[in-house]
Amino acid sequence: MYDTDTICAISSPAGCGAIALVRLGGPNAIAIADRCLEFPKTHKTLAAQKGNTVHFANILRNGQVLDEVVVTLFRSPHSYTGDNLVEIGCHGSVYIQQKILELLIEKGARLARPGEFTQRAFLNGKMDLSQAEGVADLIASSSEAAHRLAMNQMRGGFSIEIGRLREQLLHFVSLIELELDFSEEDVEFADRSQLATLIGRIGAMLGKLLHSFEQGNAIKHGIPVAIVGRTNSGKSTLLNQLLREEKAIVSDIAGTTRDYLEDTFTLQGIQFRFIDTAGLRHTQDTIEREGIQRSLKKYEQAALVMVMVDPADPMEQLEESLGFLDDYAAESSPKRVLFVLNKVDLLTEAQIGQKLEELKKRWGNIRHFITLSAKLGIGLQELENQLVNLAGITQAGEQDVVVTNARHFEALRHARQALDRVVEGLEIQLPSDLMAQDIREILHYLGEITGEISTDEVLGNIFKNFCIGK
Amino acid sequence: MYDTDTICAISSPAGCGAIALVRLGGPNAIAIADRCLEFPKTHKTLAAQKGNTVHFANILRNGQVLDEVVVTLFRSPHSYTGDNLVEIGCHGSVYIQQKILELLIEKGARLARPGEFTQRAFLNGKMDLSQAEGVADLIASSSEAAHRLAMNQMRGGFSIEIGRLREQLLHFVSLIELELDFSEEDVEFADRSQLATLIGRIGAMLGKLLHSFEQGNAIKHGIPVAIVGRTNSGKSTLLNQLLREEKAIVSDIAGTTRDYLEDTFTLQGIQFRFIDTAGLRHTQDTIEREGIQRSLKKYEQAALVMVMVDPADPMEQLEESLGFLDDYAAESSPKRVLFVLNKVDLLTEAQIGQKLEELKKRWGNIRHFITLSAKLGIGLQELENQLVNLAGITQAGEQDVVVTNARHFEALRHARQALDRVVEGLEIQLPSDLMAQDIREILHYLGEITGEISTDEVLGNIFKNFCIGK
Repeated sequence: MYDTDTICAISSPAGCGAIALVRLGGPNAIAIADRCLEFPKTHKTLAAQKGNTVHFANILRNGQVLDEVVVTLFRSPHSYTGDNLVEIGCHGSVYIQQKILELLIEKGARLARPGEFTQRAFLNGKMDLSQAEGVADLIASSSEAAHRLAMNQMRGGFSIEIGRLREQLLHFVSLIELELDFSEEDVEFADRSQLATLIGRIGAMLGKLLHSFEQGNAIKHGIPVAIVGRTNSGKSTLLNQLLREEKAIVSDIAGTTRDYLEDTFTLQGIQFRFIDTAGLRHTQDTIEREGIQRSLKKYEQAALVMVMVDPADPMEQLEESLGFLDDYAAESSPKRVLFVLNKVDLLTEAQIGQKLEELKKRWGNIRHFITLSAKLGIGLQELENQLVNLAGITQAGEQDVVVTNARHFEALRHARQALDRVVEGLEIQLPSDLMAQDIREILHYLGEITGEISTDEVLGNIFKNFCIGK
Repeated sequence: MYDTDTICAISSPAGCGAIALVRLGGPNAIAIADRCLEFPKTHKTLAAQKGNTVHFANILRNGQVLDEVVVTLFRSPHSYTGDNLVEIGCHGSVYIQQKILELLIEKGARLARPGEFTQRAFLNGKMDLSQAEGVADLIASSSEAAHRLAMNQMRGGFSIEIGRLREQLLHFVSLIELELDFSEEDVEFADRSQLATLIGRIGAMLGKLLHSFEQGNAIKHGIPVAIVGRTNSGKSTLLNQLLREEKAIVSDIAGTTRDYLEDTFTLQGIQFRFIDTAGLRHTQDTIEREGIQRSLKKYEQAALVMVMVDPADPMEQLEESLGFLDDYAAESSPKRVLFVLNKVDLLTEAQIGQKLEELKKRWGNIRHFITLSAKLGIGLQELENQLVNLAGITQAGEQDVVVTNARHFEALRHARQALDRVVEGLEIQLPSDLMAQDIREILHYLGEITGEISTDEVLGNIFKNFCIGK
């Protein structure tokens, strides 16, 4: 898998800017850099310089100065990848970036594949696989919660937890395998009741990690929220209010808006993903009914359903449109539905109270009600707090381990299946060799997460999703 | 103008990437950096480190690690701006970039204005104004020729030329002003014939520089080419062929395409800008005639007109459509029109020869003819060479001085007006004091170019067009 090519890539974001960063890493990085750089201030080569130093240089093409650059030298093993690494800070025109890359390739480097610098860091033992995946998540994260989880993973939080589990198991499996060597003597080195206790503890931990995936996934991709309600109940107005706030923050920095997803908004550091649904009304039209059926499907994907109610709507019509909530509420947890009584600026206190009473009477299993005026922006702060509460995401601390990665989730699931067999094996007093095999399987799947067990295919799949230059 | 704020900005291109670069510069840059950085490897502050060094660091917000970063320290005066400068290389998520910026502002920096780092470099005497303008041009340049001119300007080529002229003049004006002190004695320290010679030389140089502006402007913004021809003569096919070639080069590097202008193409390092024109045909329709009138206007802006001819078009119809070429050819240089006989794959050699004869007979003042098949890609290389030749741009060498900047052009124009008055003054033997005033005016305008003479307003206008972070 690991090759000794020297690789190069543009590591700064694509496009034109003040400064761009070109990375060159590998055994010949310094030699290749010296083939196209001159240092007018020191008159030394880069090869003559110490690591972790910065130098002003001219980058030359065909004897002419292509650009004036700042060159940073990292010497192996004190670099991100563990290899020699040269970073060239150039003027950020696309033309210059491209020409420098062409020049480095001409002088002996090759274009890096996506994530190849990080892959080398993994292969050189600078980080484990789950940490490497944390790097990609970190770069992709766009909300505070997602950022915190990725940061934690990159800094090894997840790996430490997995490592601890593996170590304890490894101890037991070696004892059990020792028993096999003495099988004729029928000894038991591994205390079965201790093993049962450990397996129980590991099972609980796996359960916690597996359970955290739902939350981790929601944090990473945003919590899916369906906003439903009859036509004209004020859904768009409310959405605009929520989005406007978010946009104002994002657009503080020029250029960031282009990564902005129209349909997500971040409240108190948690990202919500709005699921568009067709307006609900009673209809005989086949196509429109189909559309509403599809909307209902979408509510099922949603973790949270916000029901917008216009106080002017008669109860009979609401019943007709929102009947599906009974099924929904019955089959899943009713706490995830939030009734929003809109347009309260048009009502008296008494009228508001009466409307709420009616709604609560009809949908008794729903406990979350809120009143606001989307148009005037009244009650938005309260809505925000409710949404964040209902999202059910406890503010994960720096040390909390949350699984966000589908690959990890799969490995954990397989580990638990093997673990279940071990539990069963303990009950029916399975022979040591069969038991050892199941424990080895747990070890295997946990090792896959950190990369102690990995195949080229797995690595290829992981790193191909990185951006180039990282 | 110069303030002592510490400023910060994202200097890498906008958006998400592997690595982003945040710049922090000014008297308190190191102190502000130390307020939010910890260095787990050295356990020293940045203040304790030497200049031109690189350090691994954690950047902290509210006691939590916001990101793991690489920090480069440049100490005054050995930095781009001349101030203390701290560059933070962080993971390239938009979220992290934004949070780091917010953090630096919270700790005492303020957001930099566009070009403010370069403006400080100018104010600190690290470069003159024309060099600073070269930096902006360099970042904006998207073809080899534009890049070379900007590079030359940034490295001081233009300034050296201007400086030389100023110095010689300064010598004379001081001699003339000396005469004023001795005016009663009627002496002549400044040899008038020597002055006349110098003024002549400066005049010639100003003329050359002013003349180079046309070329410089064409290089910087692309040479305007109008492709005209009757409907279906193959204009789009040809344009696609030209564009496709360029696109293939540009798209070698992922992400560069987004800076790609649909209507420009670069041939042999020279950028051409295609001017869209309405298809030509004889029409009684008033609106369409108006469209064609506008097209004709556009040909006048074009430096180059490519006339596409379909061999199947009868001569009468061509005459009708292309009659305007007679006027065009008459009033400007006829060499800038190129006849392109398309679809030659459908003709025999004899037919091609005959058609060319007809065309040459009708448009005798046009000397440039080419035959090709846009569809099959035959003759494109020859076309490319012809376009580059007709562009009339001599490959400017590293040392050639070409004016690309409208501000410089204006200053040079004013300088020449003053110079013309000096020439006249020498003829009519104008008194020394009046002469000195005109010479001072030449000095003033030349000084404006390099920034020896500058106003806040001029500086503001120049730097507001920079990108932020440079």
